[in-house]
Amino acid sequence: MAWDKVQALVFDVFGTVVDWRSGVARDAAPFLAQYGQGRVEPLALADAWRRQYGPSMEPVRNGSRPFVRLDVLHRENLEKALRELGIDPNEIPPTALDGLNLAWHKLDPWPDAVAGLTRLKTRYIIAPLSNGNIRLMLDMAKRAGLPWDAILGAEVAQAYKPTPQAYLRTAEVLGLAPDEICMVAAHNNDLAAARQCGLKTAFVRRATEHGPQQTTDLEAQQDWDAVVEDFAALADQLLG
Amino acid sequence: MAWDKVQALVFDVFGTVVDWRSGVARDAAPFLAQYGQGRVEPLALADAWRRQYGPSMEPVRNGSRPFVRLDVLHRENLEKALRELGIDPNEIPPTALDGLNLAWHKLDPWPDAVAGLTRLKTRYIIAPLSNGNIRLMLDMAKRAGLPWDAILGAEVAQAYKPTPQAYLRTAEVLGLAPDEICMVAAHNNDLAAARQCGLKTAFVRRATEHGPQQTTDLEAQQDWDAVVEDFAALADQLLG
Repeated sequence: MAWDKVQALVFDVFGTVVDWRSGVARDAAPFLAQYGQGRVEPLALADAWRRQYGPSMEPVRNGSRPFVRLDVLHRENLEKALRELGIDPNEIPPTALDGLNLAWHKLDPWPDAVAGLTRLKTRYIIAPLSNGNIRLMLDMAKRAGLPWDAILGAEVAQAYKPTPQAYLRTAEVLGLAPDEICMVAAHNNDLAAARQCGLKTAFVRRATEHGPQQTTDLEAQQDWDAVVEDFAALADQLLG
Repeated sequence: MAWDKVQALVFDVFGTVVDWRSGVARDAAPFLAQYGQGRVEPLALADAWRRQYGPSMEPVRNGSRPFVRLDVLHRENLEKALRELGIDPNEIPPTALDGLNLAWHKLDPWPDAVAGLTRLKTRYIIAPLSNGNIRLMLDMAKRAGLPWDAILGAEVAQAYKPTPQAYLRTAEVLGLAPDEICMVAAHNNDLAAARQCGLKTAFVRRATEHGPQQTTDLEAQQDWDAVVEDFAALADQLLG
């Protein structure tokens, strides 16, 4: 594999760099204690909220809705998830919903992430290529100490992954050819889309992103250019 | 002044954070030694190149040219500056011109900049709001250790300062009202445009940006919300 050409590593974030499920559940707990009528477990809200994530971007991807940042979609999705769980969001103060929406800005990194990124930054440009918006990624990085060189992704590209423009406009902003960039993700579909655009690919196994019963993305589904257990292993492999 | 509301500081970069004139001259010296036929001083090329800067953005500002990133304008401006100084750029290998164009990616900060930004980052979001493109700002930050929380500016806003959209779209990306943001710059015209958009303003005196004979921007031309000698003084004032 021609790692020699690679100058930048771009990272999926939700699930790959940070543990969204535990983080959202942590902030959902006091919210549900106040507004949940004892009906809903915090992890169940995290899962229901996340299930709305992919579908909510689809109208933007297919052009039927202008680009809006993920904070807006998350806020809409929260109301849908609450309804699905039998809670009427209209009974809850909007400021409480707005507050819980910021849970995505305060997610904790997986234990290996900060140290691994810090090592990788010594040789490569490192940046998120997430569907999360700039302010969300900024708040997360500032709180957690994620040492990004810049915050790239859907809002800069004005396109949501796995739309090709999300990857190709990121390459253009970096002034690099696609094969000078490696996409790092815990999700086979993200890597498949990146590979279609000509990027190198690294799969990081995050076997508990969806909890202990996870059934998806446990294995590499293609011969990705790297397949590793965590960011320490990625740094070992790339920095030799 | 209601500094209490301010959550983010956005910075002009060329002249305010970094010393473009010395940096460009440093990289121009070996270039001119090879291609300059002994005719041109490095500082004269730096000044001639920078004189093209404002005019080159004007077609983008007035809508007669689609947005292109500053690297593209710098490259065009280099050829104009060389011609003005009696050097035919067609006689020079394009790779040498491309190489010199990267001088703007490798500028040194003023001596107080990194320490001041590092202090200010403890309380505020800090980001460039420069006309420089993302990759340029990224390379500069990585080389110099500028601790930005994110790289914002003209390329993210798709508008060049002092167009209002450059400031207002930056506020939108940050999810902040204009008066929750302070523009920090060594240039009165930049601050005037930011103030028109509702941002707070801080003037930093950079009396040798244009060399020892500088005549412009030596004094604050309005009652800016802060007027300081350097970033250490700004941090003293804002962090109390």
